[in-house]
Amino acid sequence: MNVIVMGCGRLGSRIATTLDAEGHHVTVVDNNEAAFKRLPGSFHGERVLGNGMDTSTLERGGIATADAFFALTQGDNRNYFASQMAREVYHVARVLCRVYDPVREEIFRELGLETFSPTSVGAKIMVEMLHKEPAKR
Amino acid sequence: MNVIVMGCGRLGSRIATTLDAEGHHVTVVDNNEAAFKRLPGSFHGERVLGNGMDTSTLERGGIATADAFFALTQGDNRNYFASQMAREVYHVARVLCRVYDPVREEIFRELGLETFSPTSVGAKIMVEMLHKEPAKR
Repeated sequence: MNVIVMGCGRLGSRIATTLDAEGHHVTVVDNNEAAFKRLPGSFHGERVLGNGMDTSTLERGGIATADAFFALTQGDNRNYFASQMAREVYHVARVLCRVYDPVREEIFRELGLETFSPTSVGAKIMVEMLHKEPAKR
Repeated sequence: MNVIVMGCGRLGSRIATTLDAEGHHVTVVDNNEAAFKRLPGSFHGERVLGNGMDTSTLERGGIATADAFFALTQGDNRNYFASQMAREVYHVARVLCRVYDPVREEIFRELGLETFSPTSVGAKIMVEMLHKEPAKR
C-alpha cells in the first residue's frame, strides 16, 4: 500500500515506522526537517519537507497514487483541511485524521472522515483502568 | 471514591466530568484558573488552583483521603513526580499517569505506576483502523 503520513511527531513517526516495518511504501511529510529525526535508522520510506496543506508538497509526496493518507499534525483544522484535499481533490481511498477536540471530531465524522480522538479514547481507557483492579506490580 | 485529577486540559476535564457524573467526589487541580472553564456547569466537584507538584496544593485538594490520583498535565516529568508523591508520600491506592513518550512509559511502568500513553495506544488504534474496512458513510 502507498501511505502518506502528514506530521512526523510522536504519533506520526510511530505509525510511519509501524507501516514501513509491515512492508508498506510510506512517505512522511513535515514542514520541520528536525522532526524526521524521530524516524529510526531502519526506516525505508521517503521524507518530504514541506507543508502538507500545499498541493505541490502533497504531489511531491506521491498523493496521486496514495492508497491512504494520515493527517497527524498538532492542528485539528490543518488535519481537517488536508484530509478533505486528500479525499476530494486526490480521491485517496482511506483518509484517517487525528482530532483533539471531541466536538470537532463529531463534526468531522459527520462530514465523512475516519477520525481518531486521543481525548475521547484516552478518557475512556483511563476511566476503565480505574474501574478495573490494578495490574500486579 | 475520592479522586484527584491534576491537569484540567482536554483529557483531565473529560475524565473529571465522567467520574463526577458517576457519583465520585472529584477534585481538579490546575495552576491556570482559565483551565477550569473546560468543566461543564453540571460539574459538582472541587476546583483547586495551584501547582500539583506542591504538597500544600495536594493537601488542599484532599490528597490525604484520596483513593485515586490522575496525573494529566502536559509534562511527562511533572506527571511522574506528582505520581510518585501521591504514591510514596500519601499512599494513594491508585495512581494513574499519562505519559506521552513511549520510552518513558516503559520506565515509569517498571517503577510501578499505572500508565497510559496516547502515543502507543493511538498508533495501535490508527493502524488497526487502516487494516479494517472503513466504516460505511
